[in-house]
Amino acid sequence: MENRKDREHRSGCPINLSLETLGDSWSLLIIRDLMFGNARHFRELLRSEEGISSNILADRLKKLVAQGIITSADDPTHKQKTIYSLTEMGIALVPVLVQLGGWGRKFLPASDELTIRIEVLQQGGPPMWDEFMDELRHIHLDQNAGRRPNTKGPSVHERLAAAYDSLIASKQRTPRR
Amino acid sequence: MENRKDREHRSGCPINLSLETLGDSWSLLIIRDLMFGNARHFRELLRSEEGISSNILADRLKKLVAQGIITSADDPTHKQKTIYSLTEMGIALVPVLVQLGGWGRKFLPASDELTIRIEVLQQGGPPMWDEFMDELRHIHLDQNAGRRPNTKGPSVHERLAAAYDSLIASKQRTPRR
Repeated sequence: MENRKDREHRSGCPINLSLETLGDSWSLLIIRDLMFGNARHFRELLRSEEGISSNILADRLKKLVAQGIITSADDPTHKQKTIYSLTEMGIALVPVLVQLGGWGRKFLPASDELTIRIEVLQQGGPPMWDEFMDELRHIHLDQNAGRRPNTKGPSVHERLAAAYDSLIASKQRTPRR
Repeated sequence: MENRKDREHRSGCPINLSLETLGDSWSLLIIRDLMFGNARHFRELLRSEEGISSNILADRLKKLVAQGIITSADDPTHKQKTIYSLTEMGIALVPVLVQLGGWGRKFLPASDELTIRIEVLQQGGPPMWDEFMDELRHIHLDQNAGRRPNTKGPSVHERLAAAYDSLIASKQRTPRR
């Protein structure tokens, strides 16, 4: 279209731009693990449930850094290790991942253990997503940005972990048939 | 994992399942055009802004039907034409597309014309998405399902079209430099 701002893209439709930027499904799975699993190093990200290969992981991390969705830095606490952080652009994907997960939970054969956190976030709605994004800002952007943990009762991270632990405990009490 | 319900999938994580099901970006663009553009026939879907090829379109339509996200039927009003409809599973993607579009609108070089409808849906929030999904049920599922148009003021479809028309008119009044 005559008003298209960027000739590199297939169109200026915001849905198309998001899909082009996020590319294949691996990028969003890496973001999921940074966001919900607090996986911040290459080796932790490699351990994802879906069995990402190390060359795909390296390629997608590089692309995500170039796109401004994550940053990489030397980890001061681990020699020779790179730590990956979400940027504001990456943190803003929380509502996208919650809605995608909510859809998968409703229509596809999702496992209970991997669904419980999405269920809690769906029940909490937008106010809980905002709180979760603020916690991610605190963890990923700057120790002074966003909400500090434990200032007013359990954080969203703690509530998600508690819901997960409680589900696992209840499964252990009920032996499988 | 031991509790994985479906060995065909990489994992039982609901986010992963959604990403696997929706596949590459073409499927979601087809759903977008069915949802927002009321493109119901092959030729209309082929006219998408992003220039989908006819063999990719045919392949993705077949997959979307097999996955239960859309249905195909003979169009009673057009000889030798197939009409595609969203199912409940397809209509339930409204919040996913609004969030994806909202993210693209904020962080990527989206064009005003293609963004205005997402902007209106973001401002309207979940109550407007529910109303929009109800209108889609009326259009795609059954003439007796969902909200009938024009029962209480303009429909969401009409409000989106009005916002788009008003933007185009204001651009025509203001000549480009």
